[in-house]
Amino acid sequence: MKESKGNIIIQVAEIDNVGVVANSSGLQEGSIIRNNFRVLQRIPMGHKIALQNIGVGEKIIRYGQTIGYAKGTIPVGGWVNETNIILPDPPDLESIPFPESDKPETMPLEGYTFWGYRNKDGSVGTKNMLGIVTSVQCVAGFTQFIVNRIKKDLLPKFPNVDDVVALNHTYGCGVAINAPAAIIPIKTIQNLATNPNFGDEILVVGLGCEKLRPESLLLQKEGDSEITNIMYMQDESLSGFESLVGQVMKMAETRLEKLNLRKREECPASELVVGMQCGGSDAFSGITANPVVGFATDLIVRAGGSVLFSEVTEVRDAVHLLVPRTINPEVGKALIAEMKWYDDYLARGDADRSANPTPGNKRGGLSNIVEKALGSIVKSGTSPIVDVLKPGEKIRTKGLTFAATPASDFVCGTLQLASGMNMHVFTTGRGTPYGLSMVPVIKVGSNSTLSKRWFDLIDLDAGQIASGEKTIEEMGWELFHLILEVASGTKKVACDKLGLHNDLVLFNPGPVT
Amino acid sequence: MKESKGNIIIQVAEIDNVGVVANSSGLQEGSIIRNNFRVLQRIPMGHKIALQNIGVGEKIIRYGQTIGYAKGTIPVGGWVNETNIILPDPPDLESIPFPESDKPETMPLEGYTFWGYRNKDGSVGTKNMLGIVTSVQCVAGFTQFIVNRIKKDLLPKFPNVDDVVALNHTYGCGVAINAPAAIIPIKTIQNLATNPNFGDEILVVGLGCEKLRPESLLLQKEGDSEITNIMYMQDESLSGFESLVGQVMKMAETRLEKLNLRKREECPASELVVGMQCGGSDAFSGITANPVVGFATDLIVRAGGSVLFSEVTEVRDAVHLLVPRTINPEVGKALIAEMKWYDDYLARGDADRSANPTPGNKRGGLSNIVEKALGSIVKSGTSPIVDVLKPGEKIRTKGLTFAATPASDFVCGTLQLASGMNMHVFTTGRGTPYGLSMVPVIKVGSNSTLSKRWFDLIDLDAGQIASGEKTIEEMGWELFHLILEVASGTKKVACDKLGLHNDLVLFNPGPVT
Repeated sequence: MKESKGNIIIQVAEIDNVGVVANSSGLQEGSIIRNNFRVLQRIPMGHKIALQNIGVGEKIIRYGQTIGYAKGTIPVGGWVNETNIILPDPPDLESIPFPESDKPETMPLEGYTFWGYRNKDGSVGTKNMLGIVTSVQCVAGFTQFIVNRIKKDLLPKFPNVDDVVALNHTYGCGVAINAPAAIIPIKTIQNLATNPNFGDEILVVGLGCEKLRPESLLLQKEGDSEITNIMYMQDESLSGFESLVGQVMKMAETRLEKLNLRKREECPASELVVGMQCGGSDAFSGITANPVVGFATDLIVRAGGSVLFSEVTEVRDAVHLLVPRTINPEVGKALIAEMKWYDDYLARGDADRSANPTPGNKRGGLSNIVEKALGSIVKSGTSPIVDVLKPGEKIRTKGLTFAATPASDFVCGTLQLASGMNMHVFTTGRGTPYGLSMVPVIKVGSNSTLSKRWFDLIDLDAGQIASGEKTIEEMGWELFHLILEVASGTKKVACDKLGLHNDLVLFNPGPVT
Repeated sequence: MKESKGNIIIQVAEIDNVGVVANSSGLQEGSIIRNNFRVLQRIPMGHKIALQNIGVGEKIIRYGQTIGYAKGTIPVGGWVNETNIILPDPPDLESIPFPESDKPETMPLEGYTFWGYRNKDGSVGTKNMLGIVTSVQCVAGFTQFIVNRIKKDLLPKFPNVDDVVALNHTYGCGVAINAPAAIIPIKTIQNLATNPNFGDEILVVGLGCEKLRPESLLLQKEGDSEITNIMYMQDESLSGFESLVGQVMKMAETRLEKLNLRKREECPASELVVGMQCGGSDAFSGITANPVVGFATDLIVRAGGSVLFSEVTEVRDAVHLLVPRTINPEVGKALIAEMKWYDDYLARGDADRSANPTPGNKRGGLSNIVEKALGSIVKSGTSPIVDVLKPGEKIRTKGLTFAATPASDFVCGTLQLASGMNMHVFTTGRGTPYGLSMVPVIKVGSNSTLSKRWFDLIDLDAGQIASGEKTIEEMGWELFHLILEVASGTKKVACDKLGLHNDLVLFNPGPVT
């Protein structure tokens, strides 16, 4: 048999018995592969082809890992997809061995810097924004009104301030504030308010009668004689709408004056806190965009910086590969505890981790959550995992941290913001206009078809790896440099240029009342 | 003893052993009440005073109902509040008797009309809006961009269209779409899209890969040859941001042309679908604003119209008073089933109905959920309850319907919108800037202190009842006439004048992934 031309099939590990179709038009029926076998039916781009005959119940192997078992016999050259794969059980959380020895030191990477806004607490901002946080959704219409008024009347007077944003959310009242799970949304709102991009000049707008107390959103600072940054709409000294507006405009102006004095200074790359995420993934995500992110993760960690990776349901089926990378059994146990918490949470709602993949994932060639997870964790590179955060907790350590979050794009992004990220990298195969106003979001396309079609919505085309134009290493460095440029404000990301920003979406596993 | 001057104490039922302090400065220690007893300590406005000696464990009675039991001895003239009341058990759902006979016919009220936009399906709008519904939060930044562009470039060309609004929400992907509870958010989004104020010209913006399918948001209409009102951002024929924008702008213009032809016509009051809600309540809510709403509810029902009342946790403790008002045992059982569902839902999150009252409620004199519930259900007037809706279901019957929703203001409002309300009435004692862009929200203040302080945020001051200036009947008619005027577009409500509108907030009892 003679190999048909132009077909690219990506096989990650030698033992894999499936490969991913990389050519944009897919594989044609009858094409000859590896001078050896025929394609039995048309197989779309991103989907899997059997590289060997796979018998009923036999393992289907990708990334060197079992992603499932064959439902029937799958002949070589056949299409392997969600209809003929049986989902395996997830790794047993009780039997994963903990690491025994310290991890090897990574080679330090020195001399890389960016221009950021250094805060009093040592954190570094990548934007200079006035944040207005709310204690309750009731006031969301008012804070949006205020943001518009500030943009019109005040912001032009303070050229060093990038923007003003309302941190509106759907929490704060009408919720069981003492339920055990309430700690998650509360901690999230508290930590959002201290994101480094707000320069410690946050303004709080509360109502007055709500359950989530506005004063609980402020960190008690030493030497604070009085709280001057909370406005209560029910304040009895304020009569009529314009007096409410006037009060908060006055408070905003004071803060804008201070923010306007902030100046970018050269900071080592170790001050980066980068949140890594993927969404609208396809089968390329795990072999192009996510490995690029993984390479950049290792560079940032080597430079002394911090990286957050997340998405519990996309880590659950690969957790046996991550626990051995934790720096000690405590961190390993914390990682397993987060998996366990989420298993229980899903079970309470009569769901499990198989609820994760989307119709788009499947159309993009991701057959099930195991395959999706194996591709997702690639974002974490090879660095040791130094810490595990519960949802919404603040980052504590430099290096690679697992920040437990749902995999939902907007929920994960909101929680990573709360954890203190000052830069966000987001990979996508199907395409999403996802963006956040609080930190820059670099969007990496997993395939060139998308990256070309959405030329002004995607910042970096990792599809060039599948076509062989570039290597993972080359693009990993490219992403690392792009992160430094964006963090310095010298390059603007697509979603900021276009003004596409999602809402903050809290994770509230507790009941509403 | 000689009565001190200027003190007003409101006692609702003859058997009540507590009264509510109505004077704005509260009661002074030592004041003489009813020529009979002394006030033992300062008692703030809205709070309760013991009208008799109440022994340990004895009933505390307000509205003729037991709101709790005395924790210690409460002497006559003492302050009765959350610290000295023991919360009673809720009514036993198994032992409430169902009504046996048909309800008496109510006296019809004829000749009242308003000017509304009649739709093909028979429903009537009170606004003429272009609605853009989304299948997933991912596209929220894009739809907000589009709304701004339409307002700038298209809306001025269509003077009969009031506004354009994005029905953004936090659902659609990253959720367990097949979990049993997912039906609630899905049904809600579907029914929001058919609110009468959108004139059956809704536009759907989807992404493409999300779990909630954009096409599932459309009612199949007879004679539809093709679907022309869904835009998928991942549409492969669209390349680049401006082509995405251009596509949806074209679709919007077609719909604006049709909406622009809508004209208000005279409609009977029976076409009103009014959602009643209270939020930021105080002890006056149950004796001023809510009775006014209850009186108006009865007028609307007598005029053949529809009224929705809601808020399960504020009905739970008074459900024994509502079941006897249901028109038949089926409706009674449905009402009890919704209470049971919510009891279970709260228990799963380790909470119960006592989680409902807010710090503001308590400062306003509402000691516990029983007292709050007894004041809350007053909004339902005295009409028979003809139907019970699950959260987010569409209204089916004219008359008084219980639409089961959480009591959270913004969640309840969103669900009542989905149920099809074309007018919203909201009572408040503490004050909230709450508003919705989709339907007019009439805000009724429960006390004159608030209504005067927030003169341009409150539409109607029911505090005039506590001061004796007006009767419940007078103000009930006043509210009824105001509803007709606002529904006709001849009067604008405060939150629309100021542009204060809350976000849609879905009720999602299912897990996120």
